Amino acid sequence: MAPSTTRKLQVLSPVPADIDIANSVEPYPIGVIASELGLDASQYEVYGKSKAKVLLSVYDGLKDSPNGYYVVVGGISPTPLGEGKSTTTVGLCQALGAHLGKKVVTCVRQPSQGPTFGIKGGAAGGGYSQVIPMDEFNLHMTGDIHAITAANNLLAAAIDTRIFHESTQSDKALFNRLCPADKEGKRVFAPVMIKRLKKLGIEKTNPGDLTPDEIKAFARLDIDPAQITWKRVMDINDRFLRKITVGQGPEEKGMVRETGFDISVASEIMAVLALTTSLADMRERLGKMVIGTSRGGEPVSADDLGVGGALTVLMKDGINPTLMQTLEGTPVLVHAGPFANIAHGNSSIVADQIALKLVGENGFVVTEAGFGADIGTEKFMNIKCRYSGLTPQCAVIVATVRALKMHGGGPEVVAGRPLDHAYKTEQVDLVKAGCCNLVRHIQNTKSYGVNVVVAINAFSTDTEAEFNVIKEAAFAAGAFDAVVCTHHAHGGAGAVDLGLAVQKACEQHQSSLKFLYPLDISIKEKIEMIVKSYGADGVEFSEEAEKQIETYTRQGFSGLPICMAKTQYSFSHNASLKGAPTGFIIPIRAVRASIGAGFIYPLVGTMSTMPGLPTRPCFYDIDLDLETGRVLGLS
Amino acid sequence: MAPSTTRKLQVLSPVPADIDIANSVEPYPIGVIASELGLDASQYEVYGKSKAKVLLSVYDGLKDSPNGYYVVVGGISPTPLGEGKSTTTVGLCQALGAHLGKKVVTCVRQPSQGPTFGIKGGAAGGGYSQVIPMDEFNLHMTGDIHAITAANNLLAAAIDTRIFHESTQSDKALFNRLCPADKEGKRVFAPVMIKRLKKLGIEKTNPGDLTPDEIKAFARLDIDPAQITWKRVMDINDRFLRKITVGQGPEEKGMVRETGFDISVASEIMAVLALTTSLADMRERLGKMVIGTSRGGEPVSADDLGVGGALTVLMKDGINPTLMQTLEGTPVLVHAGPFANIAHGNSSIVADQIALKLVGENGFVVTEAGFGADIGTEKFMNIKCRYSGLTPQCAVIVATVRALKMHGGGPEVVAGRPLDHAYKTEQVDLVKAGCCNLVRHIQNTKSYGVNVVVAINAFSTDTEAEFNVIKEAAFAAGAFDAVVCTHHAHGGAGAVDLGLAVQKACEQHQSSLKFLYPLDISIKEKIEMIVKSYGADGVEFSEEAEKQIETYTRQGFSGLPICMAKTQYSFSHNASLKGAPTGFIIPIRAVRASIGAGFIYPLVGTMSTMPGLPTRPCFYDIDLDLETGRVLGLS
Repeated sequence: MAPSTTRKLQVLSPVPADIDIANSVEPYPIGVIASELGLDASQYEVYGKSKAKVLLSVYDGLKDSPNGYYVVVGGISPTPLGEGKSTTTVGLCQALGAHLGKKVVTCVRQPSQGPTFGIKGGAAGGGYSQVIPMDEFNLHMTGDIHAITAANNLLAAAIDTRIFHESTQSDKALFNRLCPADKEGKRVFAPVMIKRLKKLGIEKTNPGDLTPDEIKAFARLDIDPAQITWKRVMDINDRFLRKITVGQGPEEKGMVRETGFDISVASEIMAVLALTTSLADMRERLGKMVIGTSRGGEPVSADDLGVGGALTVLMKDGINPTLMQTLEGTPVLVHAGPFANIAHGNSSIVADQIALKLVGENGFVVTEAGFGADIGTEKFMNIKCRYSGLTPQCAVIVATVRALKMHGGGPEVVAGRPLDHAYKTEQVDLVKAGCCNLVRHIQNTKSYGVNVVVAINAFSTDTEAEFNVIKEAAFAAGAFDAVVCTHHAHGGAGAVDLGLAVQKACEQHQSSLKFLYPLDISIKEKIEMIVKSYGADGVEFSEEAEKQIETYTRQGFSGLPICMAKTQYSFSHNASLKGAPTGFIIPIRAVRASIGAGFIYPLVGTMSTMPGLPTRPCFYDIDLDLETGRVLGLS
Repeated sequence: MAPSTTRKLQVLSPVPADIDIANSVEPYPIGVIASELGLDASQYEVYGKSKAKVLLSVYDGLKDSPNGYYVVVGGISPTPLGEGKSTTTVGLCQALGAHLGKKVVTCVRQPSQGPTFGIKGGAAGGGYSQVIPMDEFNLHMTGDIHAITAANNLLAAAIDTRIFHESTQSDKALFNRLCPADKEGKRVFAPVMIKRLKKLGIEKTNPGDLTPDEIKAFARLDIDPAQITWKRVMDINDRFLRKITVGQGPEEKGMVRETGFDISVASEIMAVLALTTSLADMRERLGKMVIGTSRGGEPVSADDLGVGGALTVLMKDGINPTLMQTLEGTPVLVHAGPFANIAHGNSSIVADQIALKLVGENGFVVTEAGFGADIGTEKFMNIKCRYSGLTPQCAVIVATVRALKMHGGGPEVVAGRPLDHAYKTEQVDLVKAGCCNLVRHIQNTKSYGVNVVVAINAFSTDTEAEFNVIKEAAFAAGAFDAVVCTHHAHGGAGAVDLGLAVQKACEQHQSSLKFLYPLDISIKEKIEMIVKSYGADGVEFSEEAEKQIETYTRQGFSGLPICMAKTQYSFSHNASLKGAPTGFIIPIRAVRASIGAGFIYPLVGTMSTMPGLPTRPCFYDIDLDLETGRVLGLS
């Protein structure tokens, strides 16, 4: 039996604009969706009519009840054509929940507002498979990204101000300001200062007992301005902030410094939010985030700056996932949205944990992993599942005929120019040639010990012969199943076969989760194991990368998992190498660390962490209908 | 009869820390507060347990019902001692609502998060007169300031990107990108482009019909980088962003530019939010905000950049005021918080409008104006009431014995050093000498045609003799009443006499609102009339200011009200001139305009629009109690 909240869609052809479909459906009050999931009013907090934050404590109450099936959706290497991974994630859940009568929760990332106003538009799915209200999903939502921006930039302000104050004060003055006497002349360390003292090996708790050397060690972080890795962030596509000089005001006395802004979703705090497992764990991770290195070569953390507690307070509501709904009334948890190149690109562990308990035995949690399976699914398995301890049964790989044509050598696709007719007519040979990309993704994904289901997201110009080529290749590569689906045009009804295949894949799953690499080998060895899965012959480390690996190893961080920062468009480092390239060496330009989030990230080439706006950004079309209050022009 | 939601406080002595008092009270579910105000569930949207956004449509439904009494709370010229204006505003309302059985709504500003983590701490009132939950009031609230940051910075990104794209493209290429052909080869203007065409006097609606000259005029904004007045903002005390250079990335091709960040509450968008009267009015104001000047000398607006609609969409929830409650369960509307130096420093018109209808005849709306009455109340009357058309009956002026001692020549007060004993012992002569400050504020405020009630916010070390000196001076200056109150220590019970005085002042009010200056005189004449109320002999305009006044007059903006950007610590431009100085000339360094918000703001000296962090910021004490989830250390 389908839950009572599911909704029958009236499907139109041709498919109307996304915002028009989204606006055509009146969402259920979010309390109805919550109650259908078994939540009572004390377990969530409503934000407006159609959103609620599910409290983390829900998980504690259900710790001993069984998990549902855990399904991750990845894709082939993406192309400019768009493969519809989010749309498939939503469509599959609409099928499972509204057509196959299963308990299901969709877990997706919160999109960045930057691209919403830039080129890409929103990220709520598309056609008849969407999260609604799509404007609320794409803008502000429940403020989690805004909280990340605030926390990230408070830490940034703390860094520059601390350097400034250290540069103008003696050890003693600095110490006296950090630990001022109260009205009775008594001085105490704030609790966060005790953490720093412990780190320095100073066991004293009375400020008056510190020796001059201890005062100096405690009060002077001695941050090296040239080695600060923490940047400011903003949830806007603002390319002119990529590289800036700060501190040029006369009051800052010439303490200028080159730095830059990333987009907020690239903040380490976003990665912390996605990988944390509890409030206490988040406090710990935020405090130990490393912002740079002292002149003495020591890592300097947020807690050294005294700000880890304030960051946690800023993020205390953000840790609760946001409940929304699909067009067909099935529940969605939206939470976190770390960049999929310099971070791990997956939605949050806590949302998945809660969802698995809420759907219970025989229910389904479908979670999306960013970019192609070489990036998103790999990080899902080796980073996210490693930290969560959760085991997926099934991985879906989304492919389209058009994208595989491109991987098979089809003509270039340029935005603004009409699509080549090769993509709109039957081209069996091109598809066949492109299947090598899908095949490698299947093989890699299967090696984690999950059943792989290929979702062929159909376009109206695709043909049966083209579908059959894909299916054959998929089965030959070891896929559990390969299914054509039309959820963009038909909603969940178009993904019922996919839903059945996923159900079977989960029910018949037996293997345990196998990681690609163990944690207790060297950073270099881990990187080498990952690039082998790309089809590379090996790795080449730059001199800078060698040095950084040495430093992180010396600082005790070599036991962390690896988060490759690589182009999503190719298995290789070269975006134009489509298909399944071989015979290449992956160059590692540099290596960075997100110590709070808990991973080392090697940079393969230059990763843009701040997008720009085009000449005619999406915002030209966006306005408010002043009569109805509805958002116009969002796509 | 007091409304049923009011709560009896258990008052302790000595008064505990603000956060401890705030945490000792369990707030009513916000729906209870809303329903007590006569709102049904369709008229507000809940945000968590203790906050709700009251929908603007409530006002439309009540347009024809009578307003309540309208009371504005101002203060004497502030001192480092703190006069307790917010605390008095809240205490007065607790008295009116919970002790005198009146319908009352407190209207206050949303505080900036920057100072919360810096020096000042929160702004929810203090002692037994607070808005709760105070952590939610001080942090994030319902995201309005975050929305302002997002909107402000989207506009900033649009400016630099537009200049960049104009610099690299021909008129034709630029035009083709702005109005691209769709799949059928058809080109259309976005609605926001039609606005620009109209402004240029081009009546055509078909892109194909434009002449090359018209294409150039339309597509090329030709913004002069040296004349951009729009800055980026952030809700953090980040002094290193005061002056920065942007565009230093290699992809920005050397298009570097000096600019800076203000704190978010200094954004013109915050002033727009505070002064707007409807959704349509906000759309209009956001679109006409001027970001700078073209090389041809024309003002360039947000709508010229095509982004006015997107800004409105980002602000569409922000326009709804947030309902919270006092410690004694009376309703509070928190909305907008424009900087009180470069903007007008008052909470929003829409919140006051809604509140006046909700309390109805014989009810009370108490709204706070920033800083001393020379700034906050003056702008309340001449800018806010001018735009709203609302008439206050009573103005409260908050004074303390300690602050008046300082105005009377008392010793300097330095943060971190013990308070001089003059402030803790009876000093009738010092108080008497300082009353000149209060007197001038009373006279100025009374001239608007309101009854003035002086609230003497008592400290435990104050004496009867000192109180009597203040009362005598107040009555002599024409105050309607002068009342000692102890709401910090006793909550509403300590402000009952103040409540009764305010009630009488409102009931006996007869005069109509008299503005200090008419709009239809020149910018200079308006400024001259304002500085006379400061006690100044005249004004001195810098060469730059002269030029800017000329430009704004030529551009047709001279009919706007004036928003003086002046130190709050003195009637004069010199912060150290306490009391009621005379014989000074106010120097106008420069003149700026907030065209969208709707005022011209002359700069008297340098106004800091981005605070800094001290060596030991408040954040050192702020953390989360991981057991209870409660915020620790917020003050």
